[in-house]
Amino acid sequence: MDNVEKAVSELKKGKMILIYDGDGREGEADLVFGAEFAKPEYVEILRKDAGGLICLAVAKERAGRLGLEFYADILESSNSKLKGMKCNRTAYGDKPSFSISVNHKRVYTGIPDNDRALTIKEISKTKTKDELVANFYTPGHVFLLIGRGIENRKGHTELSLELGKRAGIEMMVLCEMLGKGNALPKKEIKEYAEKNKLVLIEGKEIIEG
Amino acid sequence: MDNVEKAVSELKKGKMILIYDGDGREGEADLVFGAEFAKPEYVEILRKDAGGLICLAVAKERAGRLGLEFYADILESSNSKLKGMKCNRTAYGDKPSFSISVNHKRVYTGIPDNDRALTIKEISKTKTKDELVANFYTPGHVFLLIGRGIENRKGHTELSLELGKRAGIEMMVLCEMLGKGNALPKKEIKEYAEKNKLVLIEGKEIIEG
Repeated sequence: MDNVEKAVSELKKGKMILIYDGDGREGEADLVFGAEFAKPEYVEILRKDAGGLICLAVAKERAGRLGLEFYADILESSNSKLKGMKCNRTAYGDKPSFSISVNHKRVYTGIPDNDRALTIKEISKTKTKDELVANFYTPGHVFLLIGRGIENRKGHTELSLELGKRAGIEMMVLCEMLGKGNALPKKEIKEYAEKNKLVLIEGKEIIEG
Repeated sequence: MDNVEKAVSELKKGKMILIYDGDGREGEADLVFGAEFAKPEYVEILRKDAGGLICLAVAKERAGRLGLEFYADILESSNSKLKGMKCNRTAYGDKPSFSISVNHKRVYTGIPDNDRALTIKEISKTKTKDELVANFYTPGHVFLLIGRGIENRKGHTELSLELGKRAGIEMMVLCEMLGKGNALPKKEIKEYAEKNKLVLIEGKEIIEG
């Protein structure tokens, strides 16, 4: 098996993997798993070992069926006096992926491992916009991202969704691995992957593979 | 010195404190410090030891000068088809405090300790809406909260801002302390406070004090 096949196989089994986007982009690794496998223990690992923002990436077609919109587009269409703050391009050259933030209506505060795992798991079962509106509210503590397709953007959102597609998964949970001050250095990413027996894959392998 | 005075004194010195809202509300402790004292090491402690969402609470009057709006109001005034998801009341009975999320324009990705500390520190120096719009963009990785005033809401946002007011600080950084699955239990909050020599204060002390 090549590395892409290994990563896809792990995702199918509900295991976590690590995706490093590339030296020329964010230079960042995200800890990633399929949303349907969400459980409190996974959220705990993400917040303790990764340390970034726990987000839920949704494939473009699925986002369409759920009626998800980009945060920037909602701001643009509003009466807000802060429209001028809308991000068109990040420092690394991409449009942001952020959609709305959500909590499932059954959570209490929305932030503990149990609550975030519940929100993620329930979203992964949600098929229509009506179900989404009926069962979730915004603002919440799980940050939805919309994939723009690997042909348009090569961020962790698209890279994880591309692997997800090959594994039959349309929503992926991801969180940035942070080090002292900055993103976790590549050497430490490799050590973490080895120690925890995680498949570590680079963006170019996914794009070319 | 009583506990409120101790907490205010610590905040003035740029130290962290712990605020437990109350058994009847979220039942949650937040790790808190004044935004003007932000540094990467503090962000690191929040993400490692607290584990929740790192937010920046802004006092009502200051939020007014910055032109900050509630996230829910922006959604409401937009053309979004997801307006029906707007949260009016959380499970614990309060309106949410969320405003927009921001990054300073000088950050790279926005999420590492250095980036979040920079965003927080720069916001703490920002006095007007024009400065805010010129130097920050949304969506970002620091979540702004607007205080509704301690007389209207008794959440961590208002409790921390009330202490901040007494310390001459208008913006407070806060992050929920999480335990296995749920909010960190009260016993473990006390142990953490003792171990790290942090003032631990309860909501009722702030409200009555």
